[in-house]
Parts: sequence; C-alpha cells; structure tokens
Amino acid sequence: MSLTRFCRSIPIFGGLEGRSLDHVLSLLQEHNYAQGATIFSKGELGRTMYVLREGEVDVLCPASNGRMIPIVRLGPGECFGEMALVELQPRSATILVRKKAKAFSLNNMDLYTLYRADNYAYVIVLQNICRMISRRLRKADSRISDFLAASEQVRPRAAKGRKRLTG
Amino acid sequence: MSLTRFCRSIPIFGGLEGRSLDHVLSLLQEHNYAQGATIFSKGELGRTMYVLREGEVDVLCPASNGRMIPIVRLGPGECFGEMALVELQPRSATILVRKKAKAFSLNNMDLYTLYRADNYAYVIVLQNICRMISRRLRKADSRISDFLAASEQVRPRAAKGRKRLTG
Repeated sequence: MSLTRFCRSIPIFGGLEGRSLDHVLSLLQEHNYAQGATIFSKGELGRTMYVLREGEVDVLCPASNGRMIPIVRLGPGECFGEMALVELQPRSATILVRKKAKAFSLNNMDLYTLYRADNYAYVIVLQNICRMISRRLRKADSRISDFLAASEQVRPRAAKGRKRLTG
Repeated sequence: MSLTRFCRSIPIFGGLEGRSLDHVLSLLQEHNYAQGATIFSKGELGRTMYVLREGEVDVLCPASNGRMIPIVRLGPGECFGEMALVELQPRSATILVRKKAKAFSLNNMDLYTLYRADNYAYVIVLQNICRMISRRLRKADSRISDFLAASEQVRPRAAKGRKRLTG
C-alpha cells in the first residue's frame, strides 16, 4: 500500500484530502526499529508522536509501586506519543517494540508549521488526535468500571476508596 | 467571582483573552440542577459539553455486566460531556448530580460558530479539550496499571488476558 493510501486509511489523518494530505505527508519522518528496542521511556521529554506503519509495540505504564506494566499492544495504523505532544508533559508511558517496526513521526514544530501554512489541515489533525484520545479514554473508563465492579464483589465498600480521575 | 474571572481560571478556557474570551462566554448557556438530577445518561445522543460552576457530579460508567459504576466525582471548574462532542458517539457515561449544581454548556454548533468567527479561539478551546482528555487518560492508564499489578500479585498470569485499549 502506498504511503498516501495508508495515511488516508488511518484515523489520525482521516478527512485529509489533496493538498492538505500532501502537506501532512511531507512533514512525516520514517523510523525503523528492531524487536526489543525502546522507542521512548516514561519520564523523558518528548514532543513527537508516532504512527505505526508495520510491526507491534507494547505500551507500558507505571503502577504505584513503580513497576512498568504492559497495558496495551498497538499495531499498524495506531498512534502513540500524542499525549506528550498535546499536554507538554514528560512521557507517561514506555514504548517497547514487540515485533520489528516501521513508524512515521510528527513533532510539535511540524504541527506548528501546519497551523501556519494550512490551518484547515491542522484543525482536522487536532480533531482526529482529540477523537483518538477520547476513544482510548472511553475504553479505559469501561475497563476501570470492570475492575471496580469486580473489586466491589470482593469488598463491598471498595468504591469509597476510589481515586479522582480528574481535577 | 465574575463569570469572566471564573472562565479565565479553568483549564478548558485557559489561554483565551480579550475578544476571544468574550466570544466564547457569549456562547455559554447556564443550567441549574437539583441534587439527584441526571444531566445526561449513557447511550443518549448529545453534542453538548458542560463546565461545572458550582456543586458536584458523579460520572457513572457501565461495567461489562451492565451495572453503572461511579468512577469519578467532579467539582467546580471541571468539564464533562466533551467526549461525545469530539467523538460524535452516544454518551459513554451517566452524569448524576451529587450536590446542587450550576453548569454552563457549549454545543457542537457553538464550536462551529467559533471556528468560523474566531479560528484562534476555536483552536485554543480544541487544544484545551484535547489536553484535558489526555490528562484524564493518563490518570486512567495509571489506575489500570495499579489494577493489573494488583491482579498479577493474585494471579501471576492475569496480564495474558488483558484487553486492547485502542484499535
């Protein structure tokens, strides 16, 4: 599949056509990673997001005891690193290559360039990032509900100790 | 605190000044809710987000068995309903008023009006929504890591059955 066709088929670039799509494609950098490589680590500063073209990566997040726990596996067409890009915070997760991977990157300066040169394309990409993160949060919330429901079955009063997700 | 000062102090409108802030404020609708009221329910169609000015609400999400589980409590300055706004999906949660509440709403047509009339303000609000959702996902992911770490202590092979968060 050509890069153009691939990019038109994935959520992060959905809705981009013609010159706007070309504009975004011209900003992408290609990277290749061996199995076992770390693409970035929790706590690092980074203003780059990645779109996986080939391969698989694991997303590892820290538990309270500091242990890194694999919480999700991503495949072709999926993105990672976009949270640090929008939040201007250190990386919240570590990305580990499970299966030899090819990825395209886009950083904050690329997005700023896009904002200045093609506002319409910028808004579409930002809306897509927002939608993607929202979809992940929806799934994360339902997973948390399951954990809470299960722990309430074990300990009926567990909900009292629940954390605030926001604030 | 005046509405202008309140809105300047909260994350969703951070970075808006002068005419852009006035523009956004002119779009807000005020709502008052009694304790025990449901602001919206899971599964409903809705293209409106809310900013809580006073009071408290509970966010309830469905577990796999269909039971609604309160997963987070929100207070003044916090937002809800923005996921249905960006994803164009039915509501993923039910919002229940815990303590008599005043909220301001902003819907998809308001945002479109803003996009047309004040692109700069629109981009700031969209970036803020994206940042807010990302912050929630970050917290949700670390909560999931804690649940997974705890369940691994009980059942060392539990991680094998983990769900995909994205895809």
